[in-house]
Amino acid sequence: MTTTQDIDVIVLGAGPAGENVADRVARAGLSVAIVEAERAGGECSYWACMPSKALLRPVEVRAAAGRMPGVGTALLDTDAVLARRDDFTEHFDDSSQADWIGSTGALLVRGRGRLAGDRRVEVDHADGTTTALAATRAVVVATGSAPTLPPVDGIEDVGAWTNREATSAPRVPGSMIVLGGGAVGCELATAWQRLGSSVTLVQHGERLLPTMEPSAGERVLASLRDDGADVRLGTSLRAVRRDGSTVHADLDDGTTVDADEFVVAAGRRPGTSGLGLDTVGLSDGDVLAVDDTTLVTAVEGGWLHAVGDCTDRAKLTHMGKYQARACADVIVARSKGETDGLDRPYAKTTTTAERTAVTQVVFTDPQVASVGLTEAAARDAGLPVDVVSYDIGSTAGGALQADGYSGLATIVVDRERRVIVGATLVGQDVTDMLHAATVMVVGEVTLERLWHAVPSFPTMSEVWLRLLETYGL
Amino acid sequence: MTTTQDIDVIVLGAGPAGENVADRVARAGLSVAIVEAERAGGECSYWACMPSKALLRPVEVRAAAGRMPGVGTALLDTDAVLARRDDFTEHFDDSSQADWIGSTGALLVRGRGRLAGDRRVEVDHADGTTTALAATRAVVVATGSAPTLPPVDGIEDVGAWTNREATSAPRVPGSMIVLGGGAVGCELATAWQRLGSSVTLVQHGERLLPTMEPSAGERVLASLRDDGADVRLGTSLRAVRRDGSTVHADLDDGTTVDADEFVVAAGRRPGTSGLGLDTVGLSDGDVLAVDDTTLVTAVEGGWLHAVGDCTDRAKLTHMGKYQARACADVIVARSKGETDGLDRPYAKTTTTAERTAVTQVVFTDPQVASVGLTEAAARDAGLPVDVVSYDIGSTAGGALQADGYSGLATIVVDRERRVIVGATLVGQDVTDMLHAATVMVVGEVTLERLWHAVPSFPTMSEVWLRLLETYGL
Repeated sequence: MTTTQDIDVIVLGAGPAGENVADRVARAGLSVAIVEAERAGGECSYWACMPSKALLRPVEVRAAAGRMPGVGTALLDTDAVLARRDDFTEHFDDSSQADWIGSTGALLVRGRGRLAGDRRVEVDHADGTTTALAATRAVVVATGSAPTLPPVDGIEDVGAWTNREATSAPRVPGSMIVLGGGAVGCELATAWQRLGSSVTLVQHGERLLPTMEPSAGERVLASLRDDGADVRLGTSLRAVRRDGSTVHADLDDGTTVDADEFVVAAGRRPGTSGLGLDTVGLSDGDVLAVDDTTLVTAVEGGWLHAVGDCTDRAKLTHMGKYQARACADVIVARSKGETDGLDRPYAKTTTTAERTAVTQVVFTDPQVASVGLTEAAARDAGLPVDVVSYDIGSTAGGALQADGYSGLATIVVDRERRVIVGATLVGQDVTDMLHAATVMVVGEVTLERLWHAVPSFPTMSEVWLRLLETYGL
Repeated sequence: MTTTQDIDVIVLGAGPAGENVADRVARAGLSVAIVEAERAGGECSYWACMPSKALLRPVEVRAAAGRMPGVGTALLDTDAVLARRDDFTEHFDDSSQADWIGSTGALLVRGRGRLAGDRRVEVDHADGTTTALAATRAVVVATGSAPTLPPVDGIEDVGAWTNREATSAPRVPGSMIVLGGGAVGCELATAWQRLGSSVTLVQHGERLLPTMEPSAGERVLASLRDDGADVRLGTSLRAVRRDGSTVHADLDDGTTVDADEFVVAAGRRPGTSGLGLDTVGLSDGDVLAVDDTTLVTAVEGGWLHAVGDCTDRAKLTHMGKYQARACADVIVARSKGETDGLDRPYAKTTTTAERTAVTQVVFTDPQVASVGLTEAAARDAGLPVDVVSYDIGSTAGGALQADGYSGLATIVVDRERRVIVGATLVGQDVTDMLHAATVMVVGEVTLERLWHAVPSFPTMSEVWLRLLETYGL
């Protein structure tokens, strides 16, 4: 082991969240080392958001063209789609991301980092050597998450695809089984079915996208079935086995589904295994519970932060980056001797939005975009809410956007505070309509004030006017 | 003339603004007559927003497809595009709009309405008869606007197209000259050039879209030229003459442009000619100056309102409808004896947004969407503003949206109040991103609060985060 190097801040994990911490801390003048065992850029850049959206955007464009008389569509050129996907993942070359990290002033340390007691980190390198680092100010865990394989007989032995193989596949499989009907499962099923695979989606619950408003899962279900996907709801996988090139999946309804590939999209666990959590009083593999200033609550001393998927907060790239910005600002503030008010709501040093305004988009067709509370979550929280929905296709903008436009906007209104506490949009091209709702929720803009936010005619955004009118304004 | 009929509210003009007044007043239980000389639905439905967007959306979809590898594009089927356009204008049959008016409880009176003194209206019918109406509560002028022909030698004699012919043309002209580089001229040039016409756009000023941020006009100019349109800036039309099937336009640079059609998109005048304004102390053809409760300021007695294009406010369908909602609520409030606070900012009875948050979208390629003040307007108003721009194509969402995505977001920040007072978005698919900016402006949400509105990854809305970061948050 080399001599211990002192550094202000050590970040474990160079995914989007870790990179954001490092960038922001370095720009404030602190020294920072960021440790990464795989590729700089993390899961998002190579095996999640970027490649999945790269697979989905072409099928989305083609579907939009198909809904517009006069605009002819051709067969998708899947080679071109996959090639563009590979461009977005930079053919798994992380040098541009590494260069970017270097440009921030942060030091990229390649190797597997692990905690080694109070403020200490050891990095095991591929060549067998180890570097010891000591953080004078903070250590930030940003090691993300890894897919979980549910306890199904045979699942370890069939060459199951996780999000990694399913987003990086070099060709379109003839057929696949997708296990899981959350956002990842629904996106993968949409992409591959439309790229030519025959997809069977198996969801143990009765709904797709079960954490979102019911309208979202219902409409995505109808669309997947329209596309020819075989969606099995309320169905569990009993056993799975591979026989040569074919996977056989035995379902609890007594049927067996055969396919070329078997994709698991059934949840993720924190990427905290082998991370030395035992050296700071935690257990290997733990989810890291954090407070609103991103400090790990179970560790004393105010030096151990965690951001992103490895925490007990929303597992979404943008929310991890949001935590990262707060984390960096907390560390920088403390480095200047500031201690008061760091956890004040809406300070830049808190993750206020994680409690009130988590945003999520699902790039299915229809797309789904949501912020804040669903009706069910609001009622569970005891809020006095009313719920209003309006058909986006009934706006002039929706009708013009696509023939047969089908979409629904739903708002959850706190009737006492007269503010919107949640919104869900379902439909073609709605993902970039979400930010308006997010500003409404975060800004706590009253309905009476929103009345003066005039949507342009003829855009789909007129649905915001219609929702207010429907609510009685 | 038949006996005078008493009615609570008389609305002159059944375009979108007039219809909105009638609907809202009728739903509140007042009796209302709405007078229309042409088609129920007005200019917007048959010769403006609806047909122009119907022409533009297909070329927009096709352009999006052309920027997505793997999604093949075919030649536009212009017959299909024009047929869809005709569906949206209901083949000039207004019966469904008339039915809708009937369903609100309002009485549709077909004929040419004109003021006939205090609270009185006379309607001249096509059969030569006249109906006299008296309003017990209010008369609302919602007669819209008409295109102006600039004083150019010969312009009356060439069969010039206005927005009406240019949006309803039954086939694609081989070539056309478009006079005017505002929103209407740019949209018509975009649509027809891409539908196969050879367009020459003549703009007397040095910029397209001169009332918007310069970036908007610059990018639309580049795109029109890329499409093959001949755009002449800083050029005036000296004379125009028709020679058989060809129009010759003499420009002040000494050149002559020949084309099959000549389109005038050079501004509009209020639709108040022949409206009997002289009977209430105004002059024929006047612009109707209104206060924030939509009352015509020059007429005493609080009975004459005006909304929409005939007023001195923004000439945009959605802003006219916004005025209409306020107008109706003022009339209804007064009918209940309420008089105080109707002009309080952000009351439903004021048109607050006309001063602070006018929204506009231009369906060119790139699209342009704006709200509130431009940098120039803010500086003219003496506001302490900073301006921040960010390339939408530099967000992951922008890069994924289209290959070579080109777009720019600009915000105008009041640095003392820490709020956004204006925003302009330029780029593919930005029109429905505008509402977020509108809520920011109308809600006066501080930058520090906006920091917690987390855009989803990877959407183009991440530009909102980048703008705040660029501004130093």
